[in-house]
Amino acid sequence: MRVINFNAGPAALPLPVLERTRDELLDYRGSGMSILEMSHRGAEFEAVLADAVARLRRLLQLPDTHEVLFMQGGASLQFALVPLNFLPAGAGADYVVTGAWGEKALKEAQAVGRARAAVSTKQDGAFRRVPAQGELQLDASAAYVHLTSNETIDGVQFHAFPDTGAVPVVCDMSSDFLWKPMDLSPFSLVYAGAQKNVGPSGLVVVVARKAFLARGRKDLPAILRYGTHADAGSLYNTPNTFGIYLVRHVLEWLEEQGGLSEMEARNRAKAAALYDAVDGSGGFYRCPVETPARSVMNPVFRTPSDALDAAFVQGAKAAGMVGLKGHRAVGGIRASLYNAVSVEDARTLAGYMRVFARQHA
Amino acid sequence: MRVINFNAGPAALPLPVLERTRDELLDYRGSGMSILEMSHRGAEFEAVLADAVARLRRLLQLPDTHEVLFMQGGASLQFALVPLNFLPAGAGADYVVTGAWGEKALKEAQAVGRARAAVSTKQDGAFRRVPAQGELQLDASAAYVHLTSNETIDGVQFHAFPDTGAVPVVCDMSSDFLWKPMDLSPFSLVYAGAQKNVGPSGLVVVVARKAFLARGRKDLPAILRYGTHADAGSLYNTPNTFGIYLVRHVLEWLEEQGGLSEMEARNRAKAAALYDAVDGSGGFYRCPVETPARSVMNPVFRTPSDALDAAFVQGAKAAGMVGLKGHRAVGGIRASLYNAVSVEDARTLAGYMRVFARQHA
Repeated sequence: MRVINFNAGPAALPLPVLERTRDELLDYRGSGMSILEMSHRGAEFEAVLADAVARLRRLLQLPDTHEVLFMQGGASLQFALVPLNFLPAGAGADYVVTGAWGEKALKEAQAVGRARAAVSTKQDGAFRRVPAQGELQLDASAAYVHLTSNETIDGVQFHAFPDTGAVPVVCDMSSDFLWKPMDLSPFSLVYAGAQKNVGPSGLVVVVARKAFLARGRKDLPAILRYGTHADAGSLYNTPNTFGIYLVRHVLEWLEEQGGLSEMEARNRAKAAALYDAVDGSGGFYRCPVETPARSVMNPVFRTPSDALDAAFVQGAKAAGMVGLKGHRAVGGIRASLYNAVSVEDARTLAGYMRVFARQHA
Repeated sequence: MRVINFNAGPAALPLPVLERTRDELLDYRGSGMSILEMSHRGAEFEAVLADAVARLRRLLQLPDTHEVLFMQGGASLQFALVPLNFLPAGAGADYVVTGAWGEKALKEAQAVGRARAAVSTKQDGAFRRVPAQGELQLDASAAYVHLTSNETIDGVQFHAFPDTGAVPVVCDMSSDFLWKPMDLSPFSLVYAGAQKNVGPSGLVVVVARKAFLARGRKDLPAILRYGTHADAGSLYNTPNTFGIYLVRHVLEWLEEQGGLSEMEARNRAKAAALYDAVDGSGGFYRCPVETPARSVMNPVFRTPSDALDAAFVQGAKAAGMVGLKGHRAVGGIRASLYNAVSVEDARTLAGYMRVFARQHA
């Protein structure tokens, strides 16, 4: 029997996607071979790639000004590629730091050039909020400003992006990409590790303004230049073909389910189920994040003690709910509610929370 | 029905590996979830990773001096990472160029620092041989010398490596990794894109001397440093978990089949079947590669005309043998004979070659 999977990433995938992948694993559509065994330059795979790009463009209603790329190396490689391509010597980059991933992105950029925190909401070692507009110390001449839309570890999410003026905006959307209808046209570059909301690990989706990509440094090795991958339609070198194939299936599933507005309704219902259980627990559960910045994708919360946190996670596992242990950097409990997690799954967890609180309050 | 797959990469995988992957795709060993949905930090996946590393070490009889890493980005990213890590300003690197991939590796290194061809066997636009020892213009003070053990596009393979003195040797073994028992201890760093002989695309296997890795540049973004990945046991960031899982299955299959000596016997038999058909065709088929450098993994050959090459490929496809078209850069015919291709498969192709030659001579 399949468990209810609250993993933070790699994470739950829609069951119909897995079933289809299983059913055609030995013979992709009568080709006599697995999709895993196919040339990335063959007609079959090129159709898969084109279909994935088309579906993503449709879901996002992405204008022609922007390009969709599939790359490797995770968001962590993007942390380095962004400054390598777009932070020329002499220029500076502004990072809006609202959690552990933003900190990491900033640190990687500092190994490349002049990058600084335009603001960091870290306080007493923890991130609990997004900054107010007035807190941002933005440099109008910055090469770009970098945001992390949702901080997976800290459970902090932007529900409205700050005004960053005319400076190009780069955003790490790894853990909330496609959680609702989103207009990406204001962004110069968005990247998302696929292993949270869109597919397996080993694949990154990049959505970028063509004119921005064209401004990237040319004196890098070809493989490190976004322009190379854009010019080659994500086929400069052998991509993670199976990953792209799986993303295609997930995107199809998203469209079949009713698209991103339906996802938004479900995701809000899932998050509400959990936060209601927290807020209605009379203080048994605490969410460390300020209410306006609470993440819809990765709610984090705690019981009165580390021992009870551990008992909570263990009891949930015994009831068929896994992946609830908070990130080792912060501890506590975390439930990741990506698109493949159903409203029913979240309500089951909320029910368990209520029972557990009664038993241990 | 499954076809006979001579793809150059992504390429044929052993059928038992695909069957097993299919059978556990929805529920990995009673865990209630797919391996695709599991945390890379969970006990199950860490066991898969450890098992893959242990099996690879065993197959290669790898000494403790060397590390095994799983990385992303393909051999193409290695082309850039090698000079970024190991070619300091002021130093030079020597590239032994015997085909299209070696040329590409050299070009990427030249975007990083001072790299040159210690020899190139290109003649009249084509690569047909490996260099004689006397042709190598090696710089004894080079930071490293780079080889490509097998050139997939040109069908040129080293059957004995040149003497490169005391300079550290880096080798791209993407298309002949694990084709026979191999002592990697003399190499400072070996890399191999998995999608040829060991697994799916989106994954690279790196085998490197620990002391060499420790000498890498420290002033790079962490994600670009081999040392980062070595220190974290390939878990610095989320790896291509499914790729590593599949590689584990392939390595298990290799051991079950009798290990690398059995692979060598099969691979030599497969290559002999094809080259015998070429050499016994009275000149109908020509292999452009000099006999001592003929590739065991990727035999390339031609019929008397481009039109007959095309008819050959089409006729083979009609008979259930696919992936025989030569690389677009060189044309002709190529049959990739990686470990998952059976001796029987190669003999079937050789039989077809004989019949085709009789029909069209």
